[in-house]
Amino acid sequence: MPESLSRLFTPQTIKADAIAGVTVLFITLPQVIAYAFLAGMPAQAGLYAALVALCLYAFTGTSKVLAVGPTAIVAMMTLQITSPFAEIGSTQYIASCTTLALLTGGVLCFLRAIRFGYIISLLSHAVVAGFITAAAVLIIGNQFPTALGLQGLKEMNLTAQMIYLAQQLTDINTVALAISLGSLVFLVLCKFFLSRWLVQAGIKPANAEIVTKSAPMLVVLLTIFLSLSFQFKDQFGVEVVGAIPSGMPELSLLVPSLDEAIQLLPGAFLIALIIFLESTSIGSVMASKQRQRIEPNQELLALGIANLGVAAVSGFPVAGSFARTAVNFASGAVSQLACVITAFFLGVTLLWFSDWFFALPTAVLSAIVIISAAQLIDIARIRELVRYSFSDAITFAGTFVMVIALGVETGIVCGVILSIMFLLRRNSRPHIAEVGRLSGTEHFRNIHRFEVETFSNLLLLRVDESLIFANARYVESFVYDQLAGRAAVTDVLLICTATNFIDVTGLLMLDDLNQNLSDTHITMHLAEIKGPVMAQLENTSFMKDLTGELFLTADLALKALTER
Amino acid sequence: MPESLSRLFTPQTIKADAIAGVTVLFITLPQVIAYAFLAGMPAQAGLYAALVALCLYAFTGTSKVLAVGPTAIVAMMTLQITSPFAEIGSTQYIASCTTLALLTGGVLCFLRAIRFGYIISLLSHAVVAGFITAAAVLIIGNQFPTALGLQGLKEMNLTAQMIYLAQQLTDINTVALAISLGSLVFLVLCKFFLSRWLVQAGIKPANAEIVTKSAPMLVVLLTIFLSLSFQFKDQFGVEVVGAIPSGMPELSLLVPSLDEAIQLLPGAFLIALIIFLESTSIGSVMASKQRQRIEPNQELLALGIANLGVAAVSGFPVAGSFARTAVNFASGAVSQLACVITAFFLGVTLLWFSDWFFALPTAVLSAIVIISAAQLIDIARIRELVRYSFSDAITFAGTFVMVIALGVETGIVCGVILSIMFLLRRNSRPHIAEVGRLSGTEHFRNIHRFEVETFSNLLLLRVDESLIFANARYVESFVYDQLAGRAAVTDVLLICTATNFIDVTGLLMLDDLNQNLSDTHITMHLAEIKGPVMAQLENTSFMKDLTGELFLTADLALKALTER
Repeated sequence: MPESLSRLFTPQTIKADAIAGVTVLFITLPQVIAYAFLAGMPAQAGLYAALVALCLYAFTGTSKVLAVGPTAIVAMMTLQITSPFAEIGSTQYIASCTTLALLTGGVLCFLRAIRFGYIISLLSHAVVAGFITAAAVLIIGNQFPTALGLQGLKEMNLTAQMIYLAQQLTDINTVALAISLGSLVFLVLCKFFLSRWLVQAGIKPANAEIVTKSAPMLVVLLTIFLSLSFQFKDQFGVEVVGAIPSGMPELSLLVPSLDEAIQLLPGAFLIALIIFLESTSIGSVMASKQRQRIEPNQELLALGIANLGVAAVSGFPVAGSFARTAVNFASGAVSQLACVITAFFLGVTLLWFSDWFFALPTAVLSAIVIISAAQLIDIARIRELVRYSFSDAITFAGTFVMVIALGVETGIVCGVILSIMFLLRRNSRPHIAEVGRLSGTEHFRNIHRFEVETFSNLLLLRVDESLIFANARYVESFVYDQLAGRAAVTDVLLICTATNFIDVTGLLMLDDLNQNLSDTHITMHLAEIKGPVMAQLENTSFMKDLTGELFLTADLALKALTER
Repeated sequence: MPESLSRLFTPQTIKADAIAGVTVLFITLPQVIAYAFLAGMPAQAGLYAALVALCLYAFTGTSKVLAVGPTAIVAMMTLQITSPFAEIGSTQYIASCTTLALLTGGVLCFLRAIRFGYIISLLSHAVVAGFITAAAVLIIGNQFPTALGLQGLKEMNLTAQMIYLAQQLTDINTVALAISLGSLVFLVLCKFFLSRWLVQAGIKPANAEIVTKSAPMLVVLLTIFLSLSFQFKDQFGVEVVGAIPSGMPELSLLVPSLDEAIQLLPGAFLIALIIFLESTSIGSVMASKQRQRIEPNQELLALGIANLGVAAVSGFPVAGSFARTAVNFASGAVSQLACVITAFFLGVTLLWFSDWFFALPTAVLSAIVIISAAQLIDIARIRELVRYSFSDAITFAGTFVMVIALGVETGIVCGVILSIMFLLRRNSRPHIAEVGRLSGTEHFRNIHRFEVETFSNLLLLRVDESLIFANARYVESFVYDQLAGRAAVTDVLLICTATNFIDVTGLLMLDDLNQNLSDTHITMHLAEIKGPVMAQLENTSFMKDLTGELFLTADLALKALTER
């Protein structure tokens, strides 16, 4: 073992990682099968995806504890994006999901290549909250039929689901309903009480928390036992997971048709953004708890590679899982070895225990998915968000309604457009003040707030922003508005103390302003231009056409203009 | 006559407006027929649209000299947006163009109602320049077949046009080619030399300019005369305008189908923006020359009403025309009466002279359109734009290529997305400085620029921007990056001197930051929060959870934190 490795892995850290790895396994197994089921994929697709993603991320990612694999939100997006193109459950559908993973991986790597990770800044908190809440509602609605023991309608359309449910209500399978209700009650009780009981029984709080988080595994094992004992499938017609092929996933190199790739690309782009957003936000929270940092650009690459790898084993898109990462961290993982150990035991399960899951009722998986989704809805945070600012409330509500009504893609795009609208609105109204000189000083202040000297033939304006397309029109109008009816003005001075940048729209606005003022015999001057802006302006026709002068300071300008 | 009117209209102003109105008529007649022809509409549609738009705008608009009616850009957009839905020239096509005018008018009025005029700030100069240049190229390409005497292929697809041209090259009508070439040469000569000759001949420069601008009318009258004399149509198969129904337009109340309205709505929205942009930019230049102002919100309404009126006479969308407005202003118009007079004579033309245009060869109209379009391409400005800034150059090029390749709608949307991307990029990298105290003062300065006191257990950061979704992630990362590896830090102080606004994303970032710092036993403090921001923050859970204190000034904070 080379020295650096032996320093990295001491017996203590290996032991810690092994404990964490096995603990995470118990949450991973039921979750990834349930999320595969949510995505409309076979159970093994979830297991393969988790196995491959955990290994690939361990070697490429910058977070030490991020557990990558299928997640509820991404599974739901996969279903909604892919289902219009193929019948759910068909070979064609599985191929489309795999293509989606391939494209998602490609988009993530491409974003890395062009260093465009900042693009997730587009997703403001209000948009993300609206999207996640709507996604949770859609996921829960989607799981209702299975929880009631009906043949599931897989479509992600709430209205269609409700109509379908009403029609099928007489066909409810009471045993399946009992299983899902029982699982739900058990999981809710565990969530709210188990941890407290365990602590009272003398178990350490951290360990109690981990046991509580393993409740889904407990439900899965229990219902498998009951299902086998009472022959749920044959006696009561309860839908079960069915055969999971034993053994390691086979590599399959899929070359999607160009047509299909183009149709799925917008969806892949959006999934890539959500994956990056979810993963880095969880990753950076965990890293900061250890005073470490994740490197967003490297994360793009690592998540991209994980998704490309998943595509090679006929999986579906993967992201960092909040629940599994939190458990990994809480149960003491110190390096990426923990995830590799989880992956190892996933492999062991696939090799020797895959037939255990045959008899697992799908109603249990619905219960697990419903509980996971319900935890995504954070009423208190939403209430605070809505009260906090008008623009965020509108953005949240718009995104929520649009995701429910028109689907994930249109909904998120609408939300982003709304938040950019509000940003532009703020950007489009920069602060401009008419200023005058504080008597006897070199200081200039707003004429509406201070007693200052003014001059009837001079208009002194201080622009407190960069001049860009979003505000150029406003600045120009402001100047004309100030001039309207002030026939005595012969000189306008723009004081650019806080102007960091002037884009072409801003430059042309200045040029037009200069030209139009000159047509009415008003001279335009500039003062306090910053160095970088001055460098930009040099050699432009605006500087050649400027009727007035450039002054270093507003005070020098005033002296020159009043002494003439 | 009420007193206010008699003060508004004196014999002098009426005379001035009459001269301007008649002068503008001579430019309006050939242009609106040519632009109707460009839009794929019958000649009378252009005349009706100009007549109605001039009158309606005169009574509702705020510019005294804006001449509203068909323009090259808007005609071209009309063709491109409507042609996918109906065969050009068919009754269905004319109905679609009318529906487009109706929807455009509706969109403009709607934007007025929600006071959303600032939305045109979305169209940065680089996008507009890219769009106008590409539109000019498309218009010229589109006019080639007619200029060569071929049956026009009306599609706005450059590649299709080139292929079509190559196939039809043997069918060129030499007489039509001679007419269009002759007209082109004549118009170009007029543009570059006529005005100079007239001035040398002793005519006043302003009048010489007006005569020059009337050159198209001269060409029209001349070719009508030639066409009648030599029987261009019957003898040489030259395409002519044909019969224009004499008399006033009939009102027709069109109720479009919901389906058609939905299909045309995105196009109508974009046309509305371009109409508003063109009209207000021309209008405000003219107004500023007289130290007057136009009122953008009222302009939205006036242009909306003009388009609704045009729809009632089976016309197509109208905007303020740059050429005709400039001539109106230059020939001395002092009030909206000038436009009403132009409209009056358009009516006279329709009533008694419409059959004059029967024999006008369409090749002449092509020449007029080509000359107008070529004037839209401003190479010098484009060169300056491309050299000036990288982001504007990319935005210009992207818009240009996309409009040519994918059409007006997609092209403009791509351009807007590009410019917003660059805006977000700038917004996403706010200026944050680690600061220290200038020894013996109360002033704090960047540690990288000044010799300042620093403290190993304190991290003092000055954030120079509002905290919003576009930069929240960056600010958070910045704090963690500064902390990485500095185990001695126990307190972080954020100095918010220049923070004018905090949105929910910013607030939650602060909340997470506070929480994560607290997990690693670092206390977070805030200083110099502005009044309005403080009002926002009150009653938020962030303020309850904040581990540290709020200080009025950075200096007070430093005293408190170092004296503990």
